[in-house]
Amino acid sequence: MTESTQILLASRPEGRPTPQNFRTETASVPAPKEGEVLLKIRYLSLDPYMRGRMSAAKSYAAPVEVGAVMEGGTVAEVVESRDPNFAAGDMVLSYSGWQTHAVAKAAHLRKLDPEKVPVTTALGVLGMPGFTAYSALLTLGKPKEGETVVVAAATGPVGSAVGQIAKIKGARAVGIAGGPEKCRALIEEFGFDAAIDHRSETFAEDLKAACPDGIDVYFENVGGPVFEAVRPLLNFYARVPVCGLVSQYNATGPFEGPDKLPGLMRDVLTKSLTIRGFIQTEFKDQMPNFIKEMGSWVADGRIRYKEDIVEGLDKAPDAFIGLLEGKNFGKLIVKVA
Amino acid sequence: MTESTQILLASRPEGRPTPQNFRTETASVPAPKEGEVLLKIRYLSLDPYMRGRMSAAKSYAAPVEVGAVMEGGTVAEVVESRDPNFAAGDMVLSYSGWQTHAVAKAAHLRKLDPEKVPVTTALGVLGMPGFTAYSALLTLGKPKEGETVVVAAATGPVGSAVGQIAKIKGARAVGIAGGPEKCRALIEEFGFDAAIDHRSETFAEDLKAACPDGIDVYFENVGGPVFEAVRPLLNFYARVPVCGLVSQYNATGPFEGPDKLPGLMRDVLTKSLTIRGFIQTEFKDQMPNFIKEMGSWVADGRIRYKEDIVEGLDKAPDAFIGLLEGKNFGKLIVKVA
Repeated sequence: MTESTQILLASRPEGRPTPQNFRTETASVPAPKEGEVLLKIRYLSLDPYMRGRMSAAKSYAAPVEVGAVMEGGTVAEVVESRDPNFAAGDMVLSYSGWQTHAVAKAAHLRKLDPEKVPVTTALGVLGMPGFTAYSALLTLGKPKEGETVVVAAATGPVGSAVGQIAKIKGARAVGIAGGPEKCRALIEEFGFDAAIDHRSETFAEDLKAACPDGIDVYFENVGGPVFEAVRPLLNFYARVPVCGLVSQYNATGPFEGPDKLPGLMRDVLTKSLTIRGFIQTEFKDQMPNFIKEMGSWVADGRIRYKEDIVEGLDKAPDAFIGLLEGKNFGKLIVKVA
Repeated sequence: MTESTQILLASRPEGRPTPQNFRTETASVPAPKEGEVLLKIRYLSLDPYMRGRMSAAKSYAAPVEVGAVMEGGTVAEVVESRDPNFAAGDMVLSYSGWQTHAVAKAAHLRKLDPEKVPVTTALGVLGMPGFTAYSALLTLGKPKEGETVVVAAATGPVGSAVGQIAKIKGARAVGIAGGPEKCRALIEEFGFDAAIDHRSETFAEDLKAACPDGIDVYFENVGGPVFEAVRPLLNFYARVPVCGLVSQYNATGPFEGPDKLPGLMRDVLTKSLTIRGFIQTEFKDQMPNFIKEMGSWVADGRIRYKEDIVEGLDKAPDAFIGLLEGKNFGKLIVKVA
């Protein structure tokens, strides 16, 4: 019998998650049945959307139950297979959550080729975050040559891909990030045209100066004061794909006034804005294009990526708490084993 | 020399417009030049968008200058023509504003046929308001069979057309209006499936009860408390074309907290909502379809309309002030002469 070390949701956070919201347990993993495989998890992806799953509030996905294993995308090695398409030693992309071992249905797995690209890219630039950036930017943002695209959390796996894809499409890419080190990386590593530090006291003025022709696409990852600085710069017919709102995930209770909603709706009306929420699953018909196009951009070095790898499953709760505060630098991944 | 009685913008309103914001003057109208016609205005359209033109704040259209004639759509009779396409006695659609006479370029006029439909329909159901409803509902709202479409200011020229076109497309139409008389008209005259009085103390519950399957399209004309009642009922992938925000046009200064913007953005994210401002001019390629399709619906009686005609240009300021408070009942038109 295989044992799995698991990190469970111990309780729902009130505001900022704490280590006490998580609990570690050991559970026996059943033997795989016909059409299933036994997996040893190698890498776990940590992503902001997981904060939503920790809450009971209604959202697009069901919450993680208290006492259940935390959900998450993983790269795993097949240990034992009862499916003809997989053999022991194969590396796969699975959705096995915060644990060391799991049984999975073979039909839910995607085989990875470690010779081609590092397997961790399946959790970042060539996985869900990269696909989110690619599909939503092209379908909803529709950047045109010469337009200005602004993205926050810009050194993250979604933001860095948004900026680089915008550049490939001929647009100007302006990234917002926290601190001078991340801003330097935006210019030097990711090739953004401008990088703005949202922690600076002159943030709003700096953003305005970096967008002399206004903003045509704002790819929303964060909300809060960053969105307030963006709003007056939005151009007529600007598009705002809403991918995440990490600045407000830990908020509790009502937000202090004045009420900015009427002002936002006035902007929507007088500037013919489009504000559009989405989940990447609605674009799944674009997956073949993504795999082909993004795969070649990454292989060519036209799209670069940055990973922030934390060692040990026991570090996952602290790393995740830090992610919500912008403490990571690049795609946050836990090396489980 | 022809004299024109004109209503000018005397000063910009602070909040609710008052009669003092308008001034009446008499001006000489020059003789028409080559390619121009002299018009006697018969009907003036009063519409909520005019409130925006009275303010200096930046919007999609330039404001009316203080001391200039108030703008507006008009139905006029040609008195003298220096263009081969028009003759004295012709009825035309023009944009001559709040006055009794004007000279206009023939190229800016559309000839009307009083034999076919009443000429006032060119200001309402077959004019700008009807086209706004038709083009934005079909392009942005995209109502599908069995879906629920909600519209406020529903007895107005835009709202009543939105509901009736939604019905033609097989959707359920729920109208919001102020007072039992207007609600009765929504059901009995316009054929809505449900009518909700926003002045009722149980408005939010009544709306919820009238939308047992949630709301798929909310055609936004008003904003404010009506939008707050709509928000929790919006379905996944709901579309919100933003046509107007009449409840906040007269607002001054900041809106009292709590701040509802983060809650709206959370709804956008978790329900993949689309919030989209527009001006009907962006859909002008649909004008031929509108003229054909809407014209036949009106001729067949499938689309009904209601006009609220006020006698005398001098009544325009008070009628317009009342319009912003929902005091009219149907398309508000001033019979100038």
